[in-house]
Amino acid sequence: MRIGFIGLGNMGAAMAANLLKAGHEVVAYNRSPEKVAALAEQGATAAASVRDAAQADVVVTMLADDRAVEAVAFGGADPAAGLVAAMPADAIHVSSSTISVDLARRLTAAHAEARNGFVSAPVFGRPEAAAAAKLFVVAAGAPDAVQTVTPVFDAIGQRTFVVSDDPSAASLVKISGNFLIASVIESLGEAMALVGKAGVDKQQYLEVLTSTLFDAPVYRTYGGLLVREQFTPPGFAAPLGLKDVKLALAAGEDLAVPMPIASLLRDRFLTLLATGGGELDWSALGALSAWEAGAPHPA
Amino acid sequence: MRIGFIGLGNMGAAMAANLLKAGHEVVAYNRSPEKVAALAEQGATAAASVRDAAQADVVVTMLADDRAVEAVAFGGADPAAGLVAAMPADAIHVSSSTISVDLARRLTAAHAEARNGFVSAPVFGRPEAAAAAKLFVVAAGAPDAVQTVTPVFDAIGQRTFVVSDDPSAASLVKISGNFLIASVIESLGEAMALVGKAGVDKQQYLEVLTSTLFDAPVYRTYGGLLVREQFTPPGFAAPLGLKDVKLALAAGEDLAVPMPIASLLRDRFLTLLATGGGELDWSALGALSAWEAGAPHPA
Amino acid sequence: MRIGFIGLGNMGAAMAANLLKAGHEVVAYNRSPEKVAALAEQGATAAASVRDAAQADVVVTMLADDRAVEAVAFGGADPAAGLVAAMPADAIHVSSSTISVDLARRLTAAHAEARNGFVSAPVFGRPEAAAAAKLFVVAAGAPDAVQTVTPVFDAIGQRTFVVSDDPSAASLVKISGNFLIASVIESLGEAMALVGKAGVDKQQYLEVLTSTLFDAPVYRTYGGLLVREQFTPPGFAAPLGLKDVKLALAAGEDLAVPMPIASLLRDRFLTLLATGGGELDWSALGALSAWEAGAPHPA
Amino acid sequence: MRIGFIGLGNMGAAMAANLLKAGHEVVAYNRSPEKVAALAEQGATAAASVRDAAQADVVVTMLADDRAVEAVAFGGADPAAGLVAAMPADAIHVSSSTISVDLARRLTAAHAEARNGFVSAPVFGRPEAAAAAKLFVVAAGAPDAVQTVTPVFDAIGQRTFVVSDDPSAASLVKISGNFLIASVIESLGEAMALVGKAGVDKQQYLEVLTSTLFDAPVYRTYGGLLVREQFTPPGFAAPLGLKDVKLALAAGEDLAVPMPIASLLRDRFLTLLATGGGELDWSALGALSAWEAGAPHPA
Repeated sequence: MRIGFIGLGNMGAAMAANLLKAGHEVVAYNRSPEKVAALAEQGATAAASVRDAAQADVVVTMLADDRAVEAVAFGGADPAAGLVAAMPADAIHVSSSTISVDLARRLTAAHAEARNGFVSAPVFGRPEAAAAAKLFVVAAGAPDAVQTVTPVFDAIGQRTFVVSDDPSAASLVKISGNFLIASVIESLGEAMALVGKAGVDKQQYLEVLTSTLFDAPVYRTYGGLLVREQFTPPGFAAPLGLKDVKLALAAGEDLAVPMPIASLLRDRFLTLLATGGGELDWSALGALSAWEAGAPHPA
Repeated sequence: MRIGFIGLGNMGAAMAANLLKAGHEVVAYNRSPEKVAALAEQGATAAASVRDAAQADVVVTMLADDRAVEAVAFGGADPAAGLVAAMPADAIHVSSSTISVDLARRLTAAHAEARNGFVSAPVFGRPEAAAAAKLFVVAAGAPDAVQTVTPVFDAIGQRTFVVSDDPSAASLVKISGNFLIASVIESLGEAMALVGKAGVDKQQYLEVLTSTLFDAPVYRTYGGLLVREQFTPPGFAAPLGLKDVKLALAAGEDLAVPMPIASLLRDRFLTLLATGGGELDWSALGALSAWEAGAPHPA
Repeated sequence: MRIGFIGLGNMGAAMAANLLKAGHEVVAYNRSPEKVAALAEQGATAAASVRDAAQADVVVTMLADDRAVEAVAFGGADPAAGLVAAMPADAIHVSSSTISVDLARRLTAAHAEARNGFVSAPVFGRPEAAAAAKLFVVAAGAPDAVQTVTPVFDAIGQRTFVVSDDPSAASLVKISGNFLIASVIESLGEAMALVGKAGVDKQQYLEVLTSTLFDAPVYRTYGGLLVREQFTPPGFAAPLGLKDVKLALAAGEDLAVPMPIASLLRDRFLTLLATGGGELDWSALGALSAWEAGAPHPA
Repeated sequence: MRIGFIGLGNMGAAMAANLLKAGHEVVAYNRSPEKVAALAEQGATAAASVRDAAQADVVVTMLADDRAVEAVAFGGADPAAGLVAAMPADAIHVSSSTISVDLARRLTAAHAEARNGFVSAPVFGRPEAAAAAKLFVVAAGAPDAVQTVTPVFDAIGQRTFVVSDDPSAASLVKISGNFLIASVIESLGEAMALVGKAGVDKQQYLEVLTSTLFDAPVYRTYGGLLVREQFTPPGFAAPLGLKDVKLALAAGEDLAVPMPIASLLRDRFLTLLATGGGELDWSALGALSAWEAGAPHPA
């Protein structure tokens, strides 16, 4: 399958490499071209523009935020340069970044009007999982479109969940999932601040948790980062965490669902950013409770 | 081993039955005697008083709250009727309920003075796990005392974690663990209120979570209760949840550790109790977010 | 002075009437024309369009939210129909509604480019105060522009505070002031839920407060509404309260200032809206604490 | 009138001095005797014990917290040395400190049994107001007892509010009033962190507030402390603020009233204490928002 791939950050570069390994033809585009060159060495074709990358059966976008996806999809000042206009009819846009419910809806409408397919397929997993083709894919879209792009999902992930034929539902599931991860970081941070200040060994504490009711990757991964206070280099930087919590709050606002933990997380991320933690992994959020209890700041 | 067992509620009755099955001699006491009769049919000896149950190598208490443990241990108006005074020298008191750090400290001191042993050994697990001898035991106390009572732990649980030689540390770990469970209930409740109001199927949503990063008993158990809205009969009633969150806040206050999620949980439990949910399982806490978003109240 | 006046809601109609009483020539525009007719009977000239109302020395806008101000100022699909383009050179736009810091900045820039003046001058006061020309005006803008429009402020208010020569500062002060009012509503609501449930007379309680440290209009006004549970008709409807708290949160986000009470207020407003209170006065927020404590919902 | 006075801290010493000025006979007791000596120079009689001070028509206690009032009233290990036992029949105990609702109830019952009178009469006002006899007194108790002690209130305060014939109601009103003050400190702190970071002059900002809707002593006093960052010496130290917020939360818990702002304030006070602010005035709470936004810590 000929796949356009736009966005070669930590996650995107690993995903595109796995598409190559799976035997697909990959036409890659990235705003800073050196990332493209690295992928070209693995067999990708370098695209000079979004429009070039759009000449494919499937175009995957893996970009930082709504703004970046909007620019790529709608072309900014030059609509003809955007994906929506430039993709061949019946090609399918797979959006794998975490985007807002609102943007998912607008993309659905715009692609429908342009007679393209659109599948929202955000992924769960950090860069290590992306490199190992062990991502979890949460997909939503028209059934035939989802079926067409299944080989893409098979190449990048270990399992795909199709949750709806409305693409925005996949975005919402992903957003709420990231909210749940951040909730784990904060609640673990509070618990560790408590037992740690009482002199309990945090590593052993985490073992108790992850050997019992909390035996899940999210506790092992983020608990481990908190125990080791290993917040740099960031696997997922704090500003991206703030972005995702804001997406959850925006979705909650749209649906009139108050989410007090999400509100707390937003304030925590602002604190982290305002006090020098903007370059840290989002797990550093979990160190703020200890900081407020008198320990040094994580930054 | 001759084991006194005091407190035959949902949890205690199952634990005592497993001690009998493991071949121990059990002398059982409960405030309402019909519970004792049921256990006597399984081979236990009925004790007429705490003092009677205290005539043993090991005395396990599994009671509702600090007040009950205090009354049993110190005898209230008649100190001689309490465990501390009535146990033979060198017998060991195992406190398996979730008690405050402060009470754990007072029991440690009082038993030391009376030349008894004291082990704090709260358990993780709901009544089903207690019945199946699948509890997790978090134990702390003097090493030789812990070793002596290990057969008790083996009979009731699937694994024992020895976290400290200071008994109060086990209480703190248990308290913080219950805080983490309540955090999961609340955060899942918020996430499900969000995706549910958007029309996503909650059962499938839970499957996505528990097949990926959130593949842990705590998400399966409490997520399942939330999806099925199955809050009665209570496995662990809401007022007990409030009690444990208050123990976490008290420990945090003692150590000067602010815990904003614990504060939120306390307010949520008060709301649940004030609006008719006092008889529900504590997982009903997770239905309040949907209630605030316009859904019916869980009670 | 010839004054264009755009936006004849509860507040705007009263302000425009006071401008007429002070002897100014008023050219009034409103989306629904019946409001214009009512003012015309008091001596105003009816404008058929924003462009018509823009032919003045000063143009005051008093509109519901950013979206409405943006549409009027920039003309939407037809920029030439908007205030910025249609005002004569050197005319001054006075924005009296509560708008975002971001929009205040964009208006400052656009008017500067069009060689118009721009003063942000939001007001404190409910419709009664507007009718009595007792508003408080918080103004910011270039000193000569502010001086030129001072007669406008004198006609509508009892006092004007010039806080900066940067128009966005006036918006921020107003936004933060509305945040403080909402904080008073919520904290009074919690206090009244507490003393009321204990049987203390709420009216007398309010008298104690307003006779002592809390002797301020904000406590008298909102305390009175809470004591009388008088939430309809709304002087300032709940959705507008949510809008303003969101403006505070957006400003806080822009400046990296966490505001936990503002976050709580946002959740409270969402709850109020989701549970049927969307038509109530924003003071109904203060009744949610009692609702969570078991009292009937204010709606 | 012969008045026993127990507790000569910042507040108590000033109140006792005003009783002397009003012509009453004062028998003063304090744990550290140097405070008594200072008052004796103004005409008081020094009492060597609580029992001595109890030999009076009215005994006023002005002590730090529940623990101190309990010790004085019930005599600790020696009940006969406590106020309840030592006061002559028909003498009246006036408790002017902020005590818990629970203790107010226990004092009411104990004094009734001992045939003494009991009036709870906490005061609003800082040491300056106490010195100027400008306190506000919130009193509750049996009508004849309240009438008997009215000359005491007249000597120390500018106005007395009789809110109930149940003494605990006065404690609740006082507790909720201190909660409202702390709410003002926190909300003003958030607002000032916001406008201050945007470059608005905080002194002028406060003037806008206190000239308009927020024209009340509580905003002038605490706003002034926040603008000047004048947190030492403490007029009312942070640990006392925490104590009072905890009394509000305890009362709320007793009545099943969730109070989310009180929960937030409790966490804030813990943060202040844990990060070195334990010696500061409680208004330093209002500086934590700016600290979280990147400004220096107030301590």
